[in-house]
Amino acid sequence: MASLSLHPDRLFPADTAVRSIARGLYQSVRDLPIISPHGHTDPAWFARNESFGNATELLLVPDHYVLRMLYSQGIPLPALGVPDATGSAAADPREAWRLFADNYHLFRGTPSRIWLDWVFSEVFDLDVLLSGDNADLYFDRITDALQREDFRPRALFDRFGIEVIATTENPLDTLEHHQAIRDSDWSGRVITAYRPDPVIDPEFEGFRGNLDRLADLTGEDCLSWQGYLAAHRQRRDFFRRMGATSTDHGHPTAATADLSPFKAEALFRRVQAETVDPADAELFRAQMLTEMATMSLDDGLVMQIHPGSFRNHNTALFQRFGRDKGADIPVRTEYVRALQPLLARHGNDPRLSVIVFTLDESTYARELAPLAGHYPALKLGPAWWFHDSPEGMRRYRRMVTETAGFYNTVGFNDDTRAFLSIPARHDLARRIDCGFLAELVAEHRLEEWEAAELAQDLAYNFAKAAYRL
Amino acid sequence: MASLSLHPDRLFPADTAVRSIARGLYQSVRDLPIISPHGHTDPAWFARNESFGNATELLLVPDHYVLRMLYSQGIPLPALGVPDATGSAAADPREAWRLFADNYHLFRGTPSRIWLDWVFSEVFDLDVLLSGDNADLYFDRITDALQREDFRPRALFDRFGIEVIATTENPLDTLEHHQAIRDSDWSGRVITAYRPDPVIDPEFEGFRGNLDRLADLTGEDCLSWQGYLAAHRQRRDFFRRMGATSTDHGHPTAATADLSPFKAEALFRRVQAETVDPADAELFRAQMLTEMATMSLDDGLVMQIHPGSFRNHNTALFQRFGRDKGADIPVRTEYVRALQPLLARHGNDPRLSVIVFTLDESTYARELAPLAGHYPALKLGPAWWFHDSPEGMRRYRRMVTETAGFYNTVGFNDDTRAFLSIPARHDLARRIDCGFLAELVAEHRLEEWEAAELAQDLAYNFAKAAYRL
Amino acid sequence: MASLSLHPDRLFPADTAVRSIARGLYQSVRDLPIISPHGHTDPAWFARNESFGNATELLLVPDHYVLRMLYSQGIPLPALGVPDATGSAAADPREAWRLFADNYHLFRGTPSRIWLDWVFSEVFDLDVLLSGDNADLYFDRITDALQREDFRPRALFDRFGIEVIATTENPLDTLEHHQAIRDSDWSGRVITAYRPDPVIDPEFEGFRGNLDRLADLTGEDCLSWQGYLAAHRQRRDFFRRMGATSTDHGHPTAATADLSPFKAEALFRRVQAETVDPADAELFRAQMLTEMATMSLDDGLVMQIHPGSFRNHNTALFQRFGRDKGADIPVRTEYVRALQPLLARHGNDPRLSVIVFTLDESTYARELAPLAGHYPALKLGPAWWFHDSPEGMRRYRRMVTETAGFYNTVGFNDDTRAFLSIPARHDLARRIDCGFLAELVAEHRLEEWEAAELAQDLAYNFAKAAYRL
Repeated sequence: MASLSLHPDRLFPADTAVRSIARGLYQSVRDLPIISPHGHTDPAWFARNESFGNATELLLVPDHYVLRMLYSQGIPLPALGVPDATGSAAADPREAWRLFADNYHLFRGTPSRIWLDWVFSEVFDLDVLLSGDNADLYFDRITDALQREDFRPRALFDRFGIEVIATTENPLDTLEHHQAIRDSDWSGRVITAYRPDPVIDPEFEGFRGNLDRLADLTGEDCLSWQGYLAAHRQRRDFFRRMGATSTDHGHPTAATADLSPFKAEALFRRVQAETVDPADAELFRAQMLTEMATMSLDDGLVMQIHPGSFRNHNTALFQRFGRDKGADIPVRTEYVRALQPLLARHGNDPRLSVIVFTLDESTYARELAPLAGHYPALKLGPAWWFHDSPEGMRRYRRMVTETAGFYNTVGFNDDTRAFLSIPARHDLARRIDCGFLAELVAEHRLEEWEAAELAQDLAYNFAKAAYRL
Repeated sequence: MASLSLHPDRLFPADTAVRSIARGLYQSVRDLPIISPHGHTDPAWFARNESFGNATELLLVPDHYVLRMLYSQGIPLPALGVPDATGSAAADPREAWRLFADNYHLFRGTPSRIWLDWVFSEVFDLDVLLSGDNADLYFDRITDALQREDFRPRALFDRFGIEVIATTENPLDTLEHHQAIRDSDWSGRVITAYRPDPVIDPEFEGFRGNLDRLADLTGEDCLSWQGYLAAHRQRRDFFRRMGATSTDHGHPTAATADLSPFKAEALFRRVQAETVDPADAELFRAQMLTEMATMSLDDGLVMQIHPGSFRNHNTALFQRFGRDKGADIPVRTEYVRALQPLLARHGNDPRLSVIVFTLDESTYARELAPLAGHYPALKLGPAWWFHDSPEGMRRYRRMVTETAGFYNTVGFNDDTRAFLSIPARHDLARRIDCGFLAELVAEHRLEEWEAAELAQDLAYNFAKAAYRL
Repeated sequence: MASLSLHPDRLFPADTAVRSIARGLYQSVRDLPIISPHGHTDPAWFARNESFGNATELLLVPDHYVLRMLYSQGIPLPALGVPDATGSAAADPREAWRLFADNYHLFRGTPSRIWLDWVFSEVFDLDVLLSGDNADLYFDRITDALQREDFRPRALFDRFGIEVIATTENPLDTLEHHQAIRDSDWSGRVITAYRPDPVIDPEFEGFRGNLDRLADLTGEDCLSWQGYLAAHRQRRDFFRRMGATSTDHGHPTAATADLSPFKAEALFRRVQAETVDPADAELFRAQMLTEMATMSLDDGLVMQIHPGSFRNHNTALFQRFGRDKGADIPVRTEYVRALQPLLARHGNDPRLSVIVFTLDESTYARELAPLAGHYPALKLGPAWWFHDSPEGMRRYRRMVTETAGFYNTVGFNDDTRAFLSIPARHDLARRIDCGFLAELVAEHRLEEWEAAELAQDLAYNFAKAAYRL
């Protein structure tokens, strides 16, 4: 069996001189607390603090990166333990894990391999590389550990050195788990973020009913434009009191609009209809981004815009297995014209902080770095999703830094529901950033003491400041 | 005169440690047989086994990479030995070669230089760099050699270690050369591939007449939708019996469609008209990709989609000299929405294998790797045409691997009519891939034994498996 | 205080072997004269030869790269000494400089930092890194020096080793400063370039009035199509006699057209109207590029096309502070279809030289290198504006060279109004190009003697030849 050991120099550039600088920088940031300002962990984990179950249900079934790769090679999802919408029987967890182990070579060269190996080695102390030969060893070691107190969510949170983690909830969420965490004697800082897509996107499943539920929750008339806006203000305030410092918007495009109140009101009436014109839906989402920015100026919530994913591209798979099975595909995304209405309204106001992400790397140097390098209200989120990877982060730094500088970026966020991999992801980002800084030092484009300052900023300070944590 | 010698470490990364790993990996794959599953060599060469003629007609006149560069610097094509459509006199081969030699510096930094130097050194044993000073030496040495038995097509095929090579023919081709090769006592494996553009693309020169010829060949009524489809099935079967394992589709875009039989039939009638609406032509090509995929599920042919080239951009040059003179220019290409109809129909079927290529590198990380890293039926072809080069291949691996992995790619194919350069092209690909793998090893992102496995896969196994050879 | 010293190996690749080759190449080009064929220095400087004033008015207020970065972090422009359109009081120059110095860390990792450090160190002999602590030292040292004879424009021009510099003027300019330079006893070669946007772009502020002024200047009837064209010919001739060797066209897109004279004339009438249809404006600009190319065939002026910038994206800032404050944002740009009409008309004529630039790097390998690597009339300008940077230049060479070769590129141009940074910019380009060539040598893709030739070409010969200087 092949051994598994995490090399101390992993992910640093190969050149001896550069690597030596990178190693030094990394030593100074490796143990900094983790700021996780954007992610998708389940607050119920930390509220209830129950065992994560078994290896398959923790590490395989919920990980869309892992599922997509296995599925792409012809492995059916039920064989991996994923139930379909009818709840029909999926494979036994151990059988599913064996299939995963048999195919672990598929992840060579991918970030999933780096994250998983870290989890196996650092969290579960495994020292052989996962393969069909040791699938049971792995399954048992992990599953047994998960039954122990020190592998419960709160214990791992503390062990991982997480200073603060943000989950994501929609306005209809009552945040009872967050309340439970706050009421508990545990001091871990778990906060929410306001993600209003279900009540902002007229094409979201159940949009019209969601407006009714929003009305019930807030006591506002959510079919009137003013009542609807007031409901948002009220829920934002509730989220803010439950720790939220940011909102998050996962629209198909980056379109924004700045309609007159009269036109906005008429549009809002139209999108309440049974069938909504796609152009109206797009315009309403666009208008709501500007409305959200206006509210942010009042309540101080940082605004995140995450556009450019074609969700549920595989229709048959979506119908059978639902969302988040690895079938969201990025599309070309335009920012310069799309963001102009919002920026014309609020872009010059330094009190506003809008963090923009992209899945379209061609916009880094062409659109986003120039925009973030000009507008006081705009900052650039880190390499995201498919680009949350060594090569993706390097491209990001190389294409963004010269025009936006470091100071218009916001550090790293892990954006994950794979809780155990969070330290691995931050470690990866720290290593890559230190490697990038080391290259600048080696090429005498930056002094070493400046790189040391920036290493701290990229690993810790920027995220804390940008998200007002 | 400057010397010509191929350095044993050429094309490996400069870093000493990385280079040393790359060298080791390369040693283990350099002598593997060549799998050439997609190319444009002429089967008549292997059927007739005649001399290739002289240096100019073998190496200069048919090479659109070489012609385009010389032409871009103001050298007229006839001066390079290229006759125009009227057959008017082109330059004497020796004079043309001298002009080429005088301008060989233009190829510095291009893959043509690498391929040509390999041919000059390895095939013709030349040891000075081509220049105006030695043009005659080159011309004579090459032309003399080409008269010898051991420089005939079959001898070179054997000497190059080619295990199998695929040519490309359209459905109207009678494959007589392939038949002659099969009937001969030579054991070289030369197979065909089914490229139906002339009978699928309503905008192809002579489309309507091609349908008539297809009817003559097959006895089917090719002006009726069912007869037309039956004719395709018949010709695919014929090609398959002549060795074909794949089809190939060079459409302007990646559009696919999945019309009802009724609508498809009506569309087929419309595209038979004297003048065809461009949108109908596009839709028909789109529909036919899905029809071809459906047939592939029956007959097992692997499907290749090569979109994104604006053919014959230089109208005047096209009218005077015809196709393939270096005036095809890539355009921006969209895949996510374009491929959805085909993928919705057949994308989840692991028995289907669709290999997609691109000339638009911005789609590697954004569209193609996410699609190939999800759909069981989809795989990603190698860096193609303008990107079949050291930097092009590196960008490909860096932008594709983290999301699609290695196992959703299909190895290398040379896609060339420049027969003598085939080993050079595979050698280049093997060196670049070994260099990429070596970087992963040096950064501890991959174990050395894994890289060794992958080096074999990328150089040999993947192409053989993906093309079912 | 941190020291400031320019490392002799700065900007070379870190690898020891590559760096050693790069160093050798650079030694052979570092002292070559500067050819600056495209820029925005003010000819009045060289005509009047007055002092540049103080540090703030020379180095801070006019530099849109510097302003944009400081503004992006919430610093108001008046605090940096930038007056608004009403002429209201801006900050005192020393106060503005202090604010700049306090925020100099923002430029870490940007080319502005490299250019500025060079100016501080090489021109003003400063040996501490700019910071809040030494803002006054800097301000005084620079401002004092600027009062001396040897820091006057002509003295610096001579000291910088500038062989020729081109400014940019529009057809309404009387070129009196150029005349004064020619009439003076100073031998510095300062030439103009013909930038007709104000009389070609119907959407330019005051277009209609500009036509009247053009008529006044030339005596031609500039409201008639033939008179208008004749006026262009006349002004081009005047510019040519004042040293111009090129024209320059900063259109929003790369669109070209080739209308019949009848249609062109009708279009010209339409764009003279009070309100112009945007499509007509675009078509007129497109047509005029082809007209300019036609004129270039007569008068020999090299043609530059610089498309793809969304000018004055920040409307409020533009209204208050005017142009060139860092709010021009690149947009996606298409070349293949856009340039076809012009290329169909003149692209095969090697006497024509059209140099194309881009802000959209996704077009380098996909569109521009294939076009420049085919059409005799087309060449590719260097990495431009936001991409005039170490990483930008590396991407340019890596994405362009394999398809266009080196010989379809035109060397470096600085494109700047920041006169003192011109040597820094050329030095940066020479270092990066030598580093790129060194990598090719180290990977045995180029012989060292070839790299040495190319280093001269890229640093000096290409620009001189391409711009016919």
